[in-house]
Amino acid sequence: MQLSFKHLTSTKQLSRADADAILSRAREMDKVLEKGKVDERLKGKILAALFYEPSTRTRLSFEAAMLRLGGQVITADGFQFSSLYKGESIEDTITMVNQYADIIAMRHPEQGSADRAAAVSKIPFINAGDGPGQHPTQALLDLYTIAKERGAIDGIKVAMVGDLKFGRTVHSLTFLLGLYDKVQFVYVSPEELKAPDKVTHFLREKGLAYEETADFSAAFDCDIAYMTRIQKERFTDHSEYERLKHIYVLRADQLKGKKVTVMHPLPRVGEIDTAVDALPNAAYFRQARNGVPVRMALLEMLLGR
Amino acid sequence: MQLSFKHLTSTKQLSRADADAILSRAREMDKVLEKGKVDERLKGKILAALFYEPSTRTRLSFEAAMLRLGGQVITADGFQFSSLYKGESIEDTITMVNQYADIIAMRHPEQGSADRAAAVSKIPFINAGDGPGQHPTQALLDLYTIAKERGAIDGIKVAMVGDLKFGRTVHSLTFLLGLYDKVQFVYVSPEELKAPDKVTHFLREKGLAYEETADFSAAFDCDIAYMTRIQKERFTDHSEYERLKHIYVLRADQLKGKKVTVMHPLPRVGEIDTAVDALPNAAYFRQARNGVPVRMALLEMLLGR
Amino acid sequence: MQLSFKHLTSTKQLSRADADAILSRAREMDKVLEKGKVDERLKGKILAALFYEPSTRTRLSFEAAMLRLGGQVITADGFQFSSLYKGESIEDTITMVNQYADIIAMRHPEQGSADRAAAVSKIPFINAGDGPGQHPTQALLDLYTIAKERGAIDGIKVAMVGDLKFGRTVHSLTFLLGLYDKVQFVYVSPEELKAPDKVTHFLREKGLAYEETADFSAAFDCDIAYMTRIQKERFTDHSEYERLKHIYVLRADQLKGKKVTVMHPLPRVGEIDTAVDALPNAAYFRQARNGVPVRMALLEMLLGR
Repeated sequence: MQLSFKHLTSTKQLSRADADAILSRAREMDKVLEKGKVDERLKGKILAALFYEPSTRTRLSFEAAMLRLGGQVITADGFQFSSLYKGESIEDTITMVNQYADIIAMRHPEQGSADRAAAVSKIPFINAGDGPGQHPTQALLDLYTIAKERGAIDGIKVAMVGDLKFGRTVHSLTFLLGLYDKVQFVYVSPEELKAPDKVTHFLREKGLAYEETADFSAAFDCDIAYMTRIQKERFTDHSEYERLKHIYVLRADQLKGKKVTVMHPLPRVGEIDTAVDALPNAAYFRQARNGVPVRMALLEMLLGR
Repeated sequence: MQLSFKHLTSTKQLSRADADAILSRAREMDKVLEKGKVDERLKGKILAALFYEPSTRTRLSFEAAMLRLGGQVITADGFQFSSLYKGESIEDTITMVNQYADIIAMRHPEQGSADRAAAVSKIPFINAGDGPGQHPTQALLDLYTIAKERGAIDGIKVAMVGDLKFGRTVHSLTFLLGLYDKVQFVYVSPEELKAPDKVTHFLREKGLAYEETADFSAAFDCDIAYMTRIQKERFTDHSEYERLKHIYVLRADQLKGKKVTVMHPLPRVGEIDTAVDALPNAAYFRQARNGVPVRMALLEMLLGR
Repeated sequence: MQLSFKHLTSTKQLSRADADAILSRAREMDKVLEKGKVDERLKGKILAALFYEPSTRTRLSFEAAMLRLGGQVITADGFQFSSLYKGESIEDTITMVNQYADIIAMRHPEQGSADRAAAVSKIPFINAGDGPGQHPTQALLDLYTIAKERGAIDGIKVAMVGDLKFGRTVHSLTFLLGLYDKVQFVYVSPEELKAPDKVTHFLREKGLAYEETADFSAAFDCDIAYMTRIQKERFTDHSEYERLKHIYVLRADQLKGKKVTVMHPLPRVGEIDTAVDALPNAAYFRQARNGVPVRMALLEMLLGR
């Protein structure tokens, strides 16, 4: 199947057919990785990884995905010292990079920058995170992880825990899960960090079942507990951050007898005790690994259109 | 044909035969790029991209050129934090990098650094810009663009517009065009940013026709209008920069009925209105793209000597 | 022969059989490099070069080694701006990178970080320097250089000159040479920079012959004079640094009629006059080059276990 889009800037572009096709291709890519054989289907192709804002995890994952398929990578990380600094527009930078590469993955601190970039790009463009905006490949690898860990997505019950207000990944994943049937949502957060209106409006419009609570234990009986980090940089009031940062800390004893799959976009800074890592529930490092086959799938599908 | 040099540090090294041979090889490389087939003639070779000063455009273009020919790249960008910082000489750094790579492209903020590097390098060395000094691959891609856009170089009329005093690219391109027959030059700048003596002396010595004017419209009837950016960092007096920065801004209406080819080394910061981009005159993004085949040609010719 | 370890964090892990096997494999790799043929025995494999602290020389050498064997590289240099900054533990970062690469080389400013990393890594891990701790691949390339320059290691007489107190390479090389028979040591330093107890204890325990002196000329009659840089950053008292920094400066005239092989881990900042470079005694650039075959050998042996 062909994807319905040339550029991926937001999870909102994805139909269920798109999402299913990507998951299906990612499963094939997982087999490529498991076999450990050299695969060169993207030989001769170049990915430009443009990271105006550093994100080592996302960048290395994209680069590994491209290299695992025999492609090559050119990287610009910490753009602030270069052309941008001299005042070049995103549009000009993207048009320039179009001359050098076959596909672009861009991380940028400004919301909307990905749409501006995609509007001028003649080669496929992937948003690798635009500030508080979208980070669709993270949402897709989250979705792939759910499918892999639980067998199916339809009908599952997902708890999102922590910073639901600023947590970009929580919003994107909600929109993506909305494509599936009878997914139930539990939003666990303190009052100050509740999911914003755009998320709850979406749920009501779609007629999806959800509850909101501050009670952490509500997460343990779900299929998925999606933990998030409370980000210091989101708070203007330091004392509020100090009060909330460790409001939900997952310990191994809380998971005793529970089948819940624990996810986290990483990095964690104390939200999950390291003793949890050894439990079968702990899926967050497998989740990180899933970034590679999902991005391999996207790179191949977008380059092959 | 073999090039007459092992290292490329300045356009002044180039004979017309050298320049023609590079343009001819660049045309072949363009065909390699157009076919989109995997080319591996530099397989097993390593380019060291040493950027003491960041220049994303030039670096990515060199790296893409090397990768498009099946070669590999090792990169050091933002050298200030590393050995250099510990006081190592350029000579020692270059001798060290000779142990790791097969060819070097170096950007450095100090004029003369490229000559020092080339003097000790046993592997081919390419100057990718040494401060206010030379940037020969930029001049070569400019020359290639003129040849490609206008069919021939002999006899053409070229306007250079903007900062002709500090604009390194304007100086290098003038020297290179001086190798060709009956090229006419029009230098368009405010009094404060006129071409320096080294340029006008060169033109008079060679007996080349040139005029100097502050009138922007003189550029529109030439074959080429080579626009440049007025660089803030060249001014000690901020108000002078503010007065001059937008002295020549090219708008689409000024090009109505004109066949002039508009070039710019990029990045632009307002010298060319974005509405110009859609006109056939606008060659600056094609010019950026030409950096790839020209650098492919140089890498192959220098490695093949 | 198989190495006795999966991860290389310290020279103390190495048996003589390990060291000999690595030198033997490095000699094969030297032949690969001399032939200049494309070698692809690590095709499809990815090295993650994680440099929390910049070290251009070590990083480029590791990257070149991987590329020379047909492998690929993903690099994170200047980690401070990324996840680490958000407070991620070394253990989590290494576990994450395990998902993307097949082998890791890490440089980190904190002593002990390499052991922490190796403890959680499921893929082979190489310490590329952990602060004042260990830098085993430097010691191995030093050892390989001695073997190559002098034909054999058993029975040689080695002078270590300069900062023997803080000089990590001097300590590591001493431990490694202790695996061989009848090596004699001469430690040349000012009183303030004498080799620490851990080194002299080691020598006495092993029953190895050594002398300590402040007299530079003692080095010239040895087989090897291993020069080191006096590092500014090790001194709290600036005037002491100024007094000691040029206490031992090697000049060409001092080597007249001498067969001593001069080594230096580089960068040098004045300890060896550049006129020495042309003498056959000067082995330090060949030493830098030896980093490539030694690292090629290690990468292949660890990936092939």
